[in-house]
Amino acid sequence: MEASLLRIEPLPGFTPTIGRLVGMLTYARSTTLAAVKGLCVTDLDHLHDDRSNSIGALLAHVAVVEQAYQVLTFEDRELSADEDSKWAGALKLGAEGRRTLRGKPLEYYIEQLATIRQHTLDALASRDDGWLERSVRAAPKINMHWAWFHVAEDEINHRGQIRWLRARLPQQAGGV
Amino acid sequence: MEASLLRIEPLPGFTPTIGRLVGMLTYARSTTLAAVKGLCVTDLDHLHDDRSNSIGALLAHVAVVEQAYQVLTFEDRELSADEDSKWAGALKLGAEGRRTLRGKPLEYYIEQLATIRQHTLDALASRDDGWLERSVRAAPKINMHWAWFHVAEDEINHRGQIRWLRARLPQQAGGV
Repeated sequence: MEASLLRIEPLPGFTPTIGRLVGMLTYARSTTLAAVKGLCVTDLDHLHDDRSNSIGALLAHVAVVEQAYQVLTFEDRELSADEDSKWAGALKLGAEGRRTLRGKPLEYYIEQLATIRQHTLDALASRDDGWLERSVRAAPKINMHWAWFHVAEDEINHRGQIRWLRARLPQQAGGV
Repeated sequence: MEASLLRIEPLPGFTPTIGRLVGMLTYARSTTLAAVKGLCVTDLDHLHDDRSNSIGALLAHVAVVEQAYQVLTFEDRELSADEDSKWAGALKLGAEGRRTLRGKPLEYYIEQLATIRQHTLDALASRDDGWLERSVRAAPKINMHWAWFHVAEDEINHRGQIRWLRARLPQQAGGV
């Protein structure tokens, strides 16, 4: 693992507290990518049992959660009906996700994650530590900092599940 | 959920960046406790398959990881041979954990987690944001802030697994 991922500290290009938060987001992402490295479409689509989400669906979920929080915080508004319906399968997972989130190679998910993340980094770079403490208009109980911590936290939660599921894929020798 | 858990911001009794970190640790812990609420000894000891860790073992792991990072950061030293051997079952999980981490009620784990957490909070309250950026002597690639972010991150990873395992406990109607 790159040495820079193992330190949480101010980062060039961001105000100090935003830099520390970006360090957490980046570290979390690096562990997600490590957890899915080398998986093929069959692995990504595999359902461990009839209530499980596939690893691919969990990656799609991670991406769309970040996208939803971009709307909630950078645009400071609720999701539109369109966004809500377009993202519902990946946001809510479950039966709908099992039906629709299939057949994509790892590169598809990785590219989606990277594109969305780049937008997050650009938007965070143009904000400051004062912004981070503001309440989110569409959900005033949370503040911007909690929202972005939660994006990392939700990803880490599902990475824990991805590791568990990967270790039990058919024909996987080891697991992580 | 308490409103204060949904904001990451400076906290009374801590320097500002440490306060934000404490907010993350506290939020993560609250979700772990919610994920295990109401479980009995049989639930806590249940093994989903022959390679799974029980939910109880995962709680013991969360506690001992925090304890190990207390040594690494607050005492700024490596684990002693004694600590290493005493904590190995819970730190490494797997076969040894499956054999030894059994038969305890939820209250046992909760009390262990709370006692260890109190020590963390007391120690963090007596340190400052400058300390948080220092390298950890026993593992100089990481800094104190990463170490404590990692304590939360490891807990969240396993909470993701706990939620998955809980939803599949025998005779559980729903899951979380």
